[in-house]
Amino acid sequence: MTLVSEMNERELIEDFRSFIHTEGKIGPGDDAAVLSDGTVASTDIVSFDRHFPAGMTYEQFGWYAAAVSFSDIASMGARPTGFLAALALPGNLEKQNAYDIMSGIDQCCEYCGTGIIGGDTKPGPGIITGTALGRMDGRKPMLRTGARPDDVICVTGPLGGPAAALMDIEYGLGLEQSRDCLYVPIPRIAEGISMAESGAVTSCMDLSDGLGTALNTICGQSHAGATVEWDFLPKNEYAVKASELTDTPLEQLLFDCGGEYELLFTADKNKLERLYDTELEFHVIGMINDSGRTELIKDGERRKIRYGRY
Amino acid sequence: MTLVSEMNERELIEDFRSFIHTEGKIGPGDDAAVLSDGTVASTDIVSFDRHFPAGMTYEQFGWYAAAVSFSDIASMGARPTGFLAALALPGNLEKQNAYDIMSGIDQCCEYCGTGIIGGDTKPGPGIITGTALGRMDGRKPMLRTGARPDDVICVTGPLGGPAAALMDIEYGLGLEQSRDCLYVPIPRIAEGISMAESGAVTSCMDLSDGLGTALNTICGQSHAGATVEWDFLPKNEYAVKASELTDTPLEQLLFDCGGEYELLFTADKNKLERLYDTELEFHVIGMINDSGRTELIKDGERRKIRYGRY
Repeated sequence: MTLVSEMNERELIEDFRSFIHTEGKIGPGDDAAVLSDGTVASTDIVSFDRHFPAGMTYEQFGWYAAAVSFSDIASMGARPTGFLAALALPGNLEKQNAYDIMSGIDQCCEYCGTGIIGGDTKPGPGIITGTALGRMDGRKPMLRTGARPDDVICVTGPLGGPAAALMDIEYGLGLEQSRDCLYVPIPRIAEGISMAESGAVTSCMDLSDGLGTALNTICGQSHAGATVEWDFLPKNEYAVKASELTDTPLEQLLFDCGGEYELLFTADKNKLERLYDTELEFHVIGMINDSGRTELIKDGERRKIRYGRY
Repeated sequence: MTLVSEMNERELIEDFRSFIHTEGKIGPGDDAAVLSDGTVASTDIVSFDRHFPAGMTYEQFGWYAAAVSFSDIASMGARPTGFLAALALPGNLEKQNAYDIMSGIDQCCEYCGTGIIGGDTKPGPGIITGTALGRMDGRKPMLRTGARPDDVICVTGPLGGPAAALMDIEYGLGLEQSRDCLYVPIPRIAEGISMAESGAVTSCMDLSDGLGTALNTICGQSHAGATVEWDFLPKNEYAVKASELTDTPLEQLLFDCGGEYELLFTADKNKLERLYDTELEFHVIGMINDSGRTELIKDGERRKIRYGRY
């Protein structure tokens, strides 16, 4: 007899995935499902227990609950069309706090160009399940399976900010300004749409589970390898400071921590000018190869990139 | 300072609804949201705490979790296109039971002609949030606002079965066969589609909150009144027995209890032959009027129909 607690989360998710089947075969293994009619959908659970770090407000928690699902549809290249919010909230929560959560969800929806279209409320321990809907509008969805040798690997912005914020919360490093990217992650909607429109992007996923996990996932699903150049990685300034102040390897902050909401993507190097034309901000961090290994080149040495702790 | 526990559920939902806005203005107040592109979506929370009566299996609980959301899109007249399942399950749950829940969800999706397209799993107290997606395929969605005086009021099947099952669980009445309709509710998908296609239906909602609440809701939102004829009401045979065995008024079993998944609808009486042409099973139970009151005619007397306890 095996208990759910004895399975790691990946096992449970794998079991779950065996039930997932979409008409178009997009869904299991990708950030969001894409139906043959062009509807894109993703659902995510966030909880007071696991996703409510010290210092976060209820409004920010609401924003966060919506942002994680919008980030999933952003990484497919979808335009948001609606959000459903299911709130299981404790009875001893102040009414104002419940209202603040809803307001935070609403603000994130508005940022993403859409609104709350439905929901449910029940008593519970503080669990919000958000479902973001979107449309491809004729764009081809960006999957995790399309990375090919010689593609460039890119990210849409600096990494390590959420890790710095978590360290600041734990150790009081005086880096309060790092907290915003943890509390109020920005779904990269416009970026995802531009990327999908460019026709240059071969694979994409969001960095909510961290760079190490995302790189290994894309390489695993694309049957490819990757080398990432340390010097090319855009580094959040607070991550650099937190690393120095705590004597923690910066590598750990950049690769192992989730809660990042930049997008990781690969692109055909011969079509890079199409990406430059979009005025998308992005940073090339390495190359896809056929080695099957994911490696970081730092100070002339190669090291294996591992799945992060998320 | 007001706590969530001091608000009744309706207040919390009303507060929540103030944030809901859809392009097409369909959503708040209806069973499901309908986007301008014809996508229909509904999300529902079910929990071990509140929706797992004695004798129910994990597989049935999974079915139930999916059925409640499919019922919502059925009542709009939508064809299901996918289901997202977010599972917050306790660590001490046996793995087999988690698998059974997923299997039950999967079976209900298959019954509804679709499949699980995505989901999420996190630790939690046993809360499943399901999101059903569907398409209108050009049909006009059936709302709660369209009932007009002289429309007939109809239901798609006998009522009181779930109430009988709950009484059997509580008092051991020997009515085990009543349990299926409580444990394995059937979303009225084909019925909803036929009804929407007929062009005769003026309003519709599912009976998940019970007949009393549904009648008052449709009348409230349509600014109308209703009279229901006791003799016309189709009565589940176990409800009749449970009423006799426990000396509980049958009226209470038919009007006050939720967990029914038949559809309540109103139809233009001049277009009834269109409904007969669909071979839809339905029962006329009364008429809409302009009195603003919802009344039951029983034994020659008129009594007010109240919101049920759901």
